[in-house]
Amino acid sequence: MTATAASYAAVDWGTSSFRLWLIGKDGTPLGERRSGEGMTTAAQEGFSAVLERHLAALDAPADLPVMICGMAGARQGWMDAGYMDVPARLEEIVGRAVVVPHSSRDIRILPGLAQRIEAAPDVMRGEETQLLGAYDEIGAGSHLLCMPGTHSKWVRLRDGAVEGFSTFMTGELFDVIGKQSILRHALDGSEAFDGTHPAFIQAVKTACVSPARFSNLIFSARSGQLLHGLDATSAKARLSGLLIGLEIAGARDTAPDAVQVQLVASGAMAALYEAALSAALLGVTVIDADLAVRRGLQAAARAVWP
Amino acid sequence: MTATAASYAAVDWGTSSFRLWLIGKDGTPLGERRSGEGMTTAAQEGFSAVLERHLAALDAPADLPVMICGMAGARQGWMDAGYMDVPARLEEIVGRAVVVPHSSRDIRILPGLAQRIEAAPDVMRGEETQLLGAYDEIGAGSHLLCMPGTHSKWVRLRDGAVEGFSTFMTGELFDVIGKQSILRHALDGSEAFDGTHPAFIQAVKTACVSPARFSNLIFSARSGQLLHGLDATSAKARLSGLLIGLEIAGARDTAPDAVQVQLVASGAMAALYEAALSAALLGVTVIDADLAVRRGLQAAARAVWP
Repeated sequence: MTATAASYAAVDWGTSSFRLWLIGKDGTPLGERRSGEGMTTAAQEGFSAVLERHLAALDAPADLPVMICGMAGARQGWMDAGYMDVPARLEEIVGRAVVVPHSSRDIRILPGLAQRIEAAPDVMRGEETQLLGAYDEIGAGSHLLCMPGTHSKWVRLRDGAVEGFSTFMTGELFDVIGKQSILRHALDGSEAFDGTHPAFIQAVKTACVSPARFSNLIFSARSGQLLHGLDATSAKARLSGLLIGLEIAGARDTAPDAVQVQLVASGAMAALYEAALSAALLGVTVIDADLAVRRGLQAAARAVWP
Repeated sequence: MTATAASYAAVDWGTSSFRLWLIGKDGTPLGERRSGEGMTTAAQEGFSAVLERHLAALDAPADLPVMICGMAGARQGWMDAGYMDVPARLEEIVGRAVVVPHSSRDIRILPGLAQRIEAAPDVMRGEETQLLGAYDEIGAGSHLLCMPGTHSKWVRLRDGAVEGFSTFMTGELFDVIGKQSILRHALDGSEAFDGTHPAFIQAVKTACVSPARFSNLIFSARSGQLLHGLDATSAKARLSGLLIGLEIAGARDTAPDAVQVQLVASGAMAALYEAALSAALLGVTVIDADLAVRRGLQAAARAVWP
């Protein structure tokens, strides 16, 4: 059985997603589980029950330890794993894992990062572990990182320390505006698109040039349909491009000198943001987000269970 | 009976609201009905049924003519009343009312305005009638008008002609972001606020200075609550201020030389926008929107039924 060879389980537990890997002595993933049982769902069924069910499905031993990052450590999650305040050295995260009490196995949750600035308060949970895992690839020096998603994070990293970061609600705004506002009519019947779609690229550029007009520009998805027969897929690509373009324009406000971005992402999301950042005339290096979070959890596991 | 003295009925039929007045020979309102039976609701029950029920409630004669503006004239409304293309002279609207066929009484719907520019397509329905009614107060010369609402309209008017306009989805974004996104937790339990709330004023100023950071700044309603105990009412005021500030910044992009704004609004909305525009260092003249739309419908009625 592969499961008996596992040293620990690594879990990335987000707001709306759950991912678990059994990890062998040399860091090799021996088994994987993915589901939509994120914090929101698990808070109802019970975090322990969800976790044990996935571990049992992989025949994991009853005493296998578990290292967790993400929203499971939020106040509304399994238990509050707290925050490390920025500026924060990534390597220090591994020593801050919090033990989940009253558990039959050794379960630990990594803390998030908090930026306690009155004018720009911000929080992250999970991305700090990705950053830790990505650091080997990034190396020393000053870097601007983009970590796209429901709540995209842009991080200013210098020599392994997070200096500051900003959350952009891009993914969630795409979801609520596209599904709940009047624009849902314009997007009705739309198909998948990617970063090569002309309406997407044009929208990224327009939002970068005129970010102040955002709440006007998105309306053009509807008026463009009414007056110029804009098709639904182009309308969706335009909404997406305007939101990602706005995010890039805003991130540039926080780091005006940046010319190169380290993009921590996977799959279709990575391809979409790579196209957008290129359209915004920024250089891009892609770092695989899935691999990064596993490496970060591995670093934490090795520090706790050497 | 007052209703027998009525010359016609004036109706402002929006997406989510219905307002009807019986108007006497001298333009005096003799009776009024307001309800939430906007286009969306009426499309299900039937426009004629909704209208006749409100007319009957005011004992209106069976042959009283009706002049309508707004979304009832949309493709998804009662009947498509078309658009006048901008640039458009306001006085020409009155001659463009479309007759609703197969009706036992004389019912007419005024057209909207369309801006058929590929890079900035835009439409309005209802506001053109408000503009017509407001013109007496505004007078000749070049003016920038702000008409706040679910979809705020900013209009560039010169000597009675609409040169161009821009829709900002401010009200609808406030609704979907405040109720459907993660920010709903931060706004939970919030109370009413007005334009004197410090969090509102500060947010307007912040969005005017850094509009590109909009999708980051709104997240501070949540992170500010997590890290600094921001109260729910302040969080709501902040979201509102950021959206209205973004709108003002965007409108300035389209009319960079404007120093004075004609605000066409009523009640609490007028007070909120007056405070926001002042915070953005723009001069403000308030024109009552309710009165304006009635005057516009009156001008159309007089042209058709002299």
